[in-house]
Amino acid sequence: MVLGTKPEAGGDESEYLDVVGVGSPLVDVLSTTEDSRLVELGLEKGSMTLVDLEAAERLYGAMGPAVEVSGGSAANTMAGIAALGGSAGFVGKVADDPLGEVFIHDIRAAGVAYHPVLDPSAGDLGTGRCLVFVTGDAERTMATHLGAATTITPADLPVSLVARGSLLYLEGYLWDLPPAKDAMRRAIEVSHENDGAVALSLSDSFCVERHRREFLDLLTGEIDVLFANEDEIVALFGASSFEAALDDVEETGVLAALTRGAGGSVVVTPNGVVHVGATPVERVVDTTGAGDLFAAGFLYGLTHGMEPEACAQLGSLCAAEVIGHLGARPEADLAELAEAAGLPL
Amino acid sequence: MVLGTKPEAGGDESEYLDVVGVGSPLVDVLSTTEDSRLVELGLEKGSMTLVDLEAAERLYGAMGPAVEVSGGSAANTMAGIAALGGSAGFVGKVADDPLGEVFIHDIRAAGVAYHPVLDPSAGDLGTGRCLVFVTGDAERTMATHLGAATTITPADLPVSLVARGSLLYLEGYLWDLPPAKDAMRRAIEVSHENDGAVALSLSDSFCVERHRREFLDLLTGEIDVLFANEDEIVALFGASSFEAALDDVEETGVLAALTRGAGGSVVVTPNGVVHVGATPVERVVDTTGAGDLFAAGFLYGLTHGMEPEACAQLGSLCAAEVIGHLGARPEADLAELAEAAGLPL
Repeated sequence: MVLGTKPEAGGDESEYLDVVGVGSPLVDVLSTTEDSRLVELGLEKGSMTLVDLEAAERLYGAMGPAVEVSGGSAANTMAGIAALGGSAGFVGKVADDPLGEVFIHDIRAAGVAYHPVLDPSAGDLGTGRCLVFVTGDAERTMATHLGAATTITPADLPVSLVARGSLLYLEGYLWDLPPAKDAMRRAIEVSHENDGAVALSLSDSFCVERHRREFLDLLTGEIDVLFANEDEIVALFGASSFEAALDDVEETGVLAALTRGAGGSVVVTPNGVVHVGATPVERVVDTTGAGDLFAAGFLYGLTHGMEPEACAQLGSLCAAEVIGHLGARPEADLAELAEAAGLPL
Repeated sequence: MVLGTKPEAGGDESEYLDVVGVGSPLVDVLSTTEDSRLVELGLEKGSMTLVDLEAAERLYGAMGPAVEVSGGSAANTMAGIAALGGSAGFVGKVADDPLGEVFIHDIRAAGVAYHPVLDPSAGDLGTGRCLVFVTGDAERTMATHLGAATTITPADLPVSLVARGSLLYLEGYLWDLPPAKDAMRRAIEVSHENDGAVALSLSDSFCVERHRREFLDLLTGEIDVLFANEDEIVALFGASSFEAALDDVEETGVLAALTRGAGGSVVVTPNGVVHVGATPVERVVDTTGAGDLFAAGFLYGLTHGMEPEACAQLGSLCAAEVIGHLGARPEADLAELAEAAGLPL
């Protein structure tokens, strides 16, 4: 397919999905906290740390009153695309437990196509959860127990669902797990076989450092669209500055959507670089999901024929909604917000 | 004790609690929805309907993407008192299941004394949950499966905890269940034996209609403080208007704190009636817990020697915080907000 075009009028829309995402299905457990508490708990502010079930339970015990909201990076992005009126599917593994029920309910209620593979052997691990510590500056620090998400293998991949997407969206976080990585590589093959495009989110700068070589290799031929924030793109190229990383990414020829928090976003296209300001927010409460929802708006735009600048504006608008409240799933009607902001969908 | 006084300096503060609340421990499942959906689901807008597990599961299936937050009317009030720096305890029954874990974690993490009685026979019922449908006007409509909360009996009452409270706070909702009602009557006795005061929240106008005679009887000698909104106080006295109900409540001699939503609140004292405006809110998102948090601020003030007007102002401030986001538990630092609003605690 050609990026940025809707399917032909008269095509079978019931079969077609704008985007199919592959990632870790998680339920987020969010709580506000002091910076000093992060230090006591040994958590690096702003990062995502993988923890085992025992550590997750210990950290939960030390956590303040919390709110539970379905999460998972790629799942948040798919929920955002659906909230804009786009069509989306999701691939990821949960356990047959109450958290799994919550995840399944929420993603389906959001209008995302999801057929969970409930591996009985994943029961002991439990559905993945992410403890999110939100500090006064609205920064989020995450400790993730991936649980059942880690058990995904290429055999679990719903090939027919992946084939329906005009664009495949991959979460970098899953690269930490060899069988999951194989499942992602298989998903890339399926997408290419069906003339789909492929997008990758770098997810986390520590994750990038762990898989730098492989991510760089993906940029030559496998990946069409790259999402990253400032730290992640600098880590990917081992660049001296964001500006230097911009030059590096331009050379790869991929379409890159780079977020800079309150500094807005930068889109690197074959025709040059576009800077877009951040959408103003009355009160930033919790930045969890900001990047995920930026990707949602951007991908909705891209799969509906919008120009890169408008794609980034739509991404900023979606990110602005999600950072105004606790949790990484949209609460407001994103399509309505876009309309009001002069970005008709 | 005399209402509105702190314990003597030098008294054993570790033993003393400002308020002990008795109510239904619930986990709220909140989702935004359209008014038309309420009609389809057969729910009366603005009310609380009790449902069985089967109906709760059916309604959950029909619900949009949701957020889970610990709730329960009296539990919300106790969490609010603790967030203001007051000391609070809670009494109510949960099951030994994941929702129960969430409730126990959140109330303890809020700093409220809670020793759950985990009745094994309550396991089948599950921990209580409340499905909260929030419409665009921020009104909440609730379908509650009380679950394990219904199994509380006088034998379950932690007498020593109730005895520690200078004020006992009772949730009207529990009056629907005879054994729970007996537990509440026993709690009133314990409080009186220990020179404690007793407050009752009328909870819901339909609940008032079901127990009107008993609630009126409680006002003569059993209850010192009454919380109600406009509909509830009118229903209690079968009055023709709010103003007529004000006259009726004045005759009873109880201290009554009556809320009127955006219209602020009215406090009826032995020395006359005080009107207090609502605290302005930038954007009202979800009114779930507004009354519970008003009661938290009011009771904190009352147990810390504040005048009725200041008590109501503090109540309004707490209510304003909780209606600015989804969920009925405070997310911001209430003590800090009070300080900033010129209401030093």
